[in-house]
Amino acid sequence: MVAVSRRAVREYHSGIIAITAIIVPPALMTDPGARPFTTAQRVQAMLAVEVALAEALAEAGVIPAASVPPIRAAARGEAYDLGALADAAAEAGNLLIPLVGALRQRVAKTDPAAAGHVHWGATSQDVIDTALVLHLRVAVTTVLASLDCAADGAADLARRHVATQVAGRTWLQQATPTTFGAKAAGWLDGLAGARVRLAAALDEALVVQFGGATGTLASLGPAAPAVAAALGARLGLRVPDIPWHTERGRLVAVACALGMTCGTLGKIGRDLALLAQTEVGEVTEPTTAGRGISSSMPHKRNPVAAALAVAAAVQAPGLVATMLAAMPQEHERALGGWQAEWDTLPALVDLAARSSAAMAATLPHLVVHEHRMRANLDAEGGVARAEGLVAALAPTLGRAEAVTLVERVCAQVLADGGTLADRAGDEPRIVQALGRAGIGTALAPGSFAGASALFVQRVLARWQRLKE
Amino acid sequence: MVAVSRRAVREYHSGIIAITAIIVPPALMTDPGARPFTTAQRVQAMLAVEVALAEALAEAGVIPAASVPPIRAAARGEAYDLGALADAAAEAGNLLIPLVGALRQRVAKTDPAAAGHVHWGATSQDVIDTALVLHLRVAVTTVLASLDCAADGAADLARRHVATQVAGRTWLQQATPTTFGAKAAGWLDGLAGARVRLAAALDEALVVQFGGATGTLASLGPAAPAVAAALGARLGLRVPDIPWHTERGRLVAVACALGMTCGTLGKIGRDLALLAQTEVGEVTEPTTAGRGISSSMPHKRNPVAAALAVAAAVQAPGLVATMLAAMPQEHERALGGWQAEWDTLPALVDLAARSSAAMAATLPHLVVHEHRMRANLDAEGGVARAEGLVAALAPTLGRAEAVTLVERVCAQVLADGGTLADRAGDEPRIVQALGRAGIGTALAPGSFAGASALFVQRVLARWQRLKE
Amino acid sequence: MVAVSRRAVREYHSGIIAITAIIVPPALMTDPGARPFTTAQRVQAMLAVEVALAEALAEAGVIPAASVPPIRAAARGEAYDLGALADAAAEAGNLLIPLVGALRQRVAKTDPAAAGHVHWGATSQDVIDTALVLHLRVAVTTVLASLDCAADGAADLARRHVATQVAGRTWLQQATPTTFGAKAAGWLDGLAGARVRLAAALDEALVVQFGGATGTLASLGPAAPAVAAALGARLGLRVPDIPWHTERGRLVAVACALGMTCGTLGKIGRDLALLAQTEVGEVTEPTTAGRGISSSMPHKRNPVAAALAVAAAVQAPGLVATMLAAMPQEHERALGGWQAEWDTLPALVDLAARSSAAMAATLPHLVVHEHRMRANLDAEGGVARAEGLVAALAPTLGRAEAVTLVERVCAQVLADGGTLADRAGDEPRIVQALGRAGIGTALAPGSFAGASALFVQRVLARWQRLKE
Amino acid sequence: MVAVSRRAVREYHSGIIAITAIIVPPALMTDPGARPFTTAQRVQAMLAVEVALAEALAEAGVIPAASVPPIRAAARGEAYDLGALADAAAEAGNLLIPLVGALRQRVAKTDPAAAGHVHWGATSQDVIDTALVLHLRVAVTTVLASLDCAADGAADLARRHVATQVAGRTWLQQATPTTFGAKAAGWLDGLAGARVRLAAALDEALVVQFGGATGTLASLGPAAPAVAAALGARLGLRVPDIPWHTERGRLVAVACALGMTCGTLGKIGRDLALLAQTEVGEVTEPTTAGRGISSSMPHKRNPVAAALAVAAAVQAPGLVATMLAAMPQEHERALGGWQAEWDTLPALVDLAARSSAAMAATLPHLVVHEHRMRANLDAEGGVARAEGLVAALAPTLGRAEAVTLVERVCAQVLADGGTLADRAGDEPRIVQALGRAGIGTALAPGSFAGASALFVQRVLARWQRLKE
Repeated sequence: MVAVSRRAVREYHSGIIAITAIIVPPALMTDPGARPFTTAQRVQAMLAVEVALAEALAEAGVIPAASVPPIRAAARGEAYDLGALADAAAEAGNLLIPLVGALRQRVAKTDPAAAGHVHWGATSQDVIDTALVLHLRVAVTTVLASLDCAADGAADLARRHVATQVAGRTWLQQATPTTFGAKAAGWLDGLAGARVRLAAALDEALVVQFGGATGTLASLGPAAPAVAAALGARLGLRVPDIPWHTERGRLVAVACALGMTCGTLGKIGRDLALLAQTEVGEVTEPTTAGRGISSSMPHKRNPVAAALAVAAAVQAPGLVATMLAAMPQEHERALGGWQAEWDTLPALVDLAARSSAAMAATLPHLVVHEHRMRANLDAEGGVARAEGLVAALAPTLGRAEAVTLVERVCAQVLADGGTLADRAGDEPRIVQALGRAGIGTALAPGSFAGASALFVQRVLARWQRLKE
Repeated sequence: MVAVSRRAVREYHSGIIAITAIIVPPALMTDPGARPFTTAQRVQAMLAVEVALAEALAEAGVIPAASVPPIRAAARGEAYDLGALADAAAEAGNLLIPLVGALRQRVAKTDPAAAGHVHWGATSQDVIDTALVLHLRVAVTTVLASLDCAADGAADLARRHVATQVAGRTWLQQATPTTFGAKAAGWLDGLAGARVRLAAALDEALVVQFGGATGTLASLGPAAPAVAAALGARLGLRVPDIPWHTERGRLVAVACALGMTCGTLGKIGRDLALLAQTEVGEVTEPTTAGRGISSSMPHKRNPVAAALAVAAAVQAPGLVATMLAAMPQEHERALGGWQAEWDTLPALVDLAARSSAAMAATLPHLVVHEHRMRANLDAEGGVARAEGLVAALAPTLGRAEAVTLVERVCAQVLADGGTLADRAGDEPRIVQALGRAGIGTALAPGSFAGASALFVQRVLARWQRLKE
Repeated sequence: MVAVSRRAVREYHSGIIAITAIIVPPALMTDPGARPFTTAQRVQAMLAVEVALAEALAEAGVIPAASVPPIRAAARGEAYDLGALADAAAEAGNLLIPLVGALRQRVAKTDPAAAGHVHWGATSQDVIDTALVLHLRVAVTTVLASLDCAADGAADLARRHVATQVAGRTWLQQATPTTFGAKAAGWLDGLAGARVRLAAALDEALVVQFGGATGTLASLGPAAPAVAAALGARLGLRVPDIPWHTERGRLVAVACALGMTCGTLGKIGRDLALLAQTEVGEVTEPTTAGRGISSSMPHKRNPVAAALAVAAAVQAPGLVATMLAAMPQEHERALGGWQAEWDTLPALVDLAARSSAAMAATLPHLVVHEHRMRANLDAEGGVARAEGLVAALAPTLGRAEAVTLVERVCAQVLADGGTLADRAGDEPRIVQALGRAGIGTALAPGSFAGASALFVQRVLARWQRLKE
Repeated sequence: MVAVSRRAVREYHSGIIAITAIIVPPALMTDPGARPFTTAQRVQAMLAVEVALAEALAEAGVIPAASVPPIRAAARGEAYDLGALADAAAEAGNLLIPLVGALRQRVAKTDPAAAGHVHWGATSQDVIDTALVLHLRVAVTTVLASLDCAADGAADLARRHVATQVAGRTWLQQATPTTFGAKAAGWLDGLAGARVRLAAALDEALVVQFGGATGTLASLGPAAPAVAAALGARLGLRVPDIPWHTERGRLVAVACALGMTCGTLGKIGRDLALLAQTEVGEVTEPTTAGRGISSSMPHKRNPVAAALAVAAAVQAPGLVATMLAAMPQEHERALGGWQAEWDTLPALVDLAARSSAAMAATLPHLVVHEHRMRANLDAEGGVARAEGLVAALAPTLGRAEAVTLVERVCAQVLADGGTLADRAGDEPRIVQALGRAGIGTALAPGSFAGASALFVQRVLARWQRLKE
């Protein structure tokens, strides 16, 4: 399903770009190792682009083939002093300028001529943007994998609980019943949609950035198209119709899809948190040693994954807004808008990675308490099932009278206690219409599931098709 | 290209849902007529859904066919007191509840039995959401048409100015030259991308909402799927796998695409505003009587369309963020999140409609001042063309020496005046390498256009394919 | 408390600027009458500024006193064709330009010389901004009044329920008990803070805008300071140090305070919604005829005010972000940023007005179910009270051992049922330490209220001081 | 001016909380050292709170005084394995839980009894929030210092250029002239406002968080108030009326003030970038070795500080929106909302720190090109000065006729070239009214400065008062 080459994943695992997408709270994310977009990883991705550029230039005959090996040899990220680069970047305006300087120096030690061929024809943004795309390819692929895992978990819940009746809730009030399978199918429906949108946006964004100083590639003369094609081929990226230094739609589409991913996961997280409330108790997050334990209250188990998903859904919208706000970038290359993206898109990837990982670790192992679901449906004498009675009476009495009658019975139950079944059995017209057994049938668990099983089946079928 | 049926557009023009997408400042948008989403239009769309529902129920045999005509007759929006509905809505929590009450009353006057069949099996959100989808179909189609018109304008500029040299500008500083055709092709590239994304998002969102109280359609019994199918068919909307009362991905995807549309147009607006500056003067917005005239300064002509596009790009991100923030909607129907969408999505459509209309009225008629483009390139003795000289010298002298030499000449020009061409002619090594004529060729307009014509051609070709 | 002159409120009530701040869902807000910032009201406020300007100019001797009465006579909003103004505004770029034209025409009918004195020395933005400030003065004062009413309601709840024990809830899980009074005091604390911030921001913003074309008032010559002072005096606004056409801090501070107001009210709304859940049932919103009734489910009562407050808290952040994003306004007057404010700040005022009105109508009449609070505390055998037992045991057994012991007892209760009190009574070491009566005391309602009464008292005292 | 104790600053410089607020591009901020809120710094601040808590507990007699020294000795941040803490935090839900565990272990090695007194009576959020407040005190103080420096620079520009005429620009078009001093005074006005708001918000937020599990401090019994008071005293923080675990107004107010700070600086940055355009050339950022140099274009000097300020102004709004969106926090402690703050507020501080540092490094050393200001005013024959001519003619000819006359002359200039002065001298009625010398006076630099010098003087005086 994922529009990402095997090669990219292999490169990822071979450590060129390492990403850790563990469940880890946001506040810990400022240290290297925890975040996918560290300076070290950015530097390595930029060096990978510089090497591919040298190879492409040689292939197109712009620079001699002999210049490539020394550049490749010098382009190992661990050889560079990240602190010094950062200091120099502060003055230069971006990280790539001092990095290219340092790369040239290293190459010059072994091959002065090759040093002159480093970064030939490119502008800083060419390399920074292309490195970002490489980075996104790996990081978003990880998110997609987590979404798959979470979706499989939701699918399993939908399948197993297709007939498990649970209170439907609207405005946070019990309404007519639904099934837990239908709830899980709703989650799956959202996850499948998020996944399709994110994969499509990533695929669209897998293009090289290459335009030189002002997007004309003028300094490469007639060789420009050949160099661009070779650069794209080496990196596994398409060549776009025109450089996109200030046309950021593709990246913003990825940002939007990541934001929607966080929103979709946040809906699931919020549902889980509400279902896990002490007074509701219908689900519990899977427990591992130490997870979600309160420091002062031994009887508590906090829904950590749900909180993480909700938090990500609170944070993501502002970051998506930043990406959108940064779109009006000036002329050929921007002042401010482009720079505003640098922290923002990685932060969005972080959020989606953590949130999807949290749900991937939770949904397949969710603990479901069916007895609490039944018990909650019986709250308030089971008036939540009233519409089942109305539906059973309507053919005989007409809907209007059925509603009036059942409303009266419900009011009695809420005022004086007892169950809806018992009070309905005290009402002669209802007994006359349905018989006592008919009342029981009308109010029985599962008697009011409507088309929910059909909905579950459709959503599962779509997910199956998507996975094929 | 647009995934919208002819019928929808016909309905639109026959006045069922009237939309005015004129260029009008935001602050005027609170009055009916100016805004596409007035209460009157919302009410009419909701009534259209209620009629289609009655028809679908009759088709599926749930209600008698005789109930449909009285419902249809009563469902004329102008018959309702919008003020009274609004007052009642304040108490009921949404507009549909009092509207259904009023509709039932009207129907009951002619056919009491039919009155009992109004809104049968549906919940408020079913009708409100489906009416919104109908509304979006028309309104977003209008945006798409404006985008087409703006894109055609950009395409025409790209074609006509494929060889018009203009200063490339990065960080708001003159850099190497590019062509005005390439600038316009960049705009077209953005517009085409925005258009494709918006059309795709709209198409995905063209689904009916129909689930009843908690998304199971239980009160319709086994007839539910048939009713849903008939409802969708009558409205020209697809039936989704499962109701989406709290899975808002499709709508949020439309919101994101609208936000990206505003961002794309905002980039064009900002470029136009910068190019129209008194000191730059390379373009002027087309003038119509009274447009952009200053009340106190007769010599001024304000770039009104550009300001509108920039303003929309500033406003849209926050509204998209709201749609994303509203995604974690509780259980089967939400408390707060759904309501937060009501004003937000229409406001986004407004912004995109106005911004795209502004650019549709501007780009096809943009006034381009080629003499100012040339004059600006000659600023500072023409040092902006320095890289052309470097490129011409590099084959002979090697790039490093060419750079050093040209840098020195540029420094002289900036310090002592004169032109780059003259000073280069004073430099023996340059004369030796290129000859005086060669210097002229290297610095001639068009000599440093690079691959820009190819880029223009590719973007135009894609736009042509998209339009077919 | 409110930094608003009586005159402003009187003008408000005399209908110059009419505002309706009823509880009404957002989607209904697009019609005139429902929204505080209709075109009609904006026009009237702008005309009020033009009249005050004419008076000020006459007072400073710039125009003859005889020109004022005809201008004043012509400045009645109802005399203007709003539709025609809106159409002209679309071309001119703002509403004021055609309005001034129309005003001049009306004045010219009776006094051609006076017509030449209309709008003398001012730029459009002077009038539009000053009119906005007048508008805000009235509208925000209404919000402050609603906040006062809501805060009084919270204060009353805090006072009455200072000893009403309720489950404390963290991560949506029952934790140690607190009191309902402390919850309400928390709400009051938030409301008081929001109120103080909003009043301060409004007060700071009550300044006139008056700078002429580029902020120098040059066309007024030496009379400029006198005119500005007279204009401020007539409108009850201060004169700032310097015009603020592109320094929007004061307005953005109001926007931020409105956003914080919505967030504070949203916290209360969310708490109310959670407490009102069927399974929790500790509060119910006050009922009025028809409010919150479900169309299909007679037993339901939806928390409408809570939903409105939550929705406002979801919408406000994006609008505040827009105001902040619009701050970098160019040079002397902006292109795009200023225009982006026009719809945004009024929308924020709307949200705060509706949300505060909803809570003003709810908190003073909130229905509190103390028996459900007690019952919920007894859920799961009362393990939520476990920390009371630990605290009672710690002095005798040491905290570590007390924790271990109580954890074991809690685990038994959760596994095998029974109550914490009973199971603790089965544990010899606990009985030995506390005696059976001591166990009862440790677990009694109110035994674990801690400093909550002190906190309540402090918050009430501060609110009392603020009101004085 | 700053509401921060000397002790806090001393602690800062003694390295307890180290902050580097250098000018450094956002993308480099993920490494320790560059960011003020690293995990190491957060851990150290949390340990500082744990020590102060132990001291306060001992002072109030809750734990023995002998327990304090071993806790203090163990609370040195460098002794902890941050990676292991981060891993454990991922499971526990926050960083403090494993940190307290590790601290207890360390203390237990020397004093097992003291280990039992670690974190006594507190909940995780008490320590995390209070540590955040300590952190903000230092970091925001740094921002305030940078704002002071930038404001002093703006004040100096305003003073020196009070009479330097420059084109006023509205809608990015030249309008009537203003002075560069007035522009700088506008910046100073904004900076002063931002500074006052930020200092006030910080001061309000300097409160301790201390409430225990659910905000009642119940486990401390009657000693609770004394412990809270001692804790506040030791940390130099006030004790609030009530714990604020879910009432986040104070923190959000700081966030809003930081957002407004970024917006204010962004306005200055945008103005500088526009003024530094090649075609305008009125200012240049101060140059240091390597700063803003283009890799491919030797003649360019990029406005790096302006870009940084604009980028921060693009990023901040979304982060402020997140803080606002997180306000509706549930019950006694939240699920998701609180966690969403963790990354967001530090990121905002980062942005404000970098943006203010950039302007602090730029404004005091801004290079101003007065000859370009004059030259730009003379563009288009000096028609930008037309209103000066109108003002001079109005007393004699009446304003209406003066406008008509000058408009005609301007149109001639724009159509046929020449200067406004010359063409006015060709117009008999103008010569008759003013004489040739009078035309010169009316159009002379400085003749149309209006009240700008007064405005400059007022803003400078206010800044002087604020600094005293």
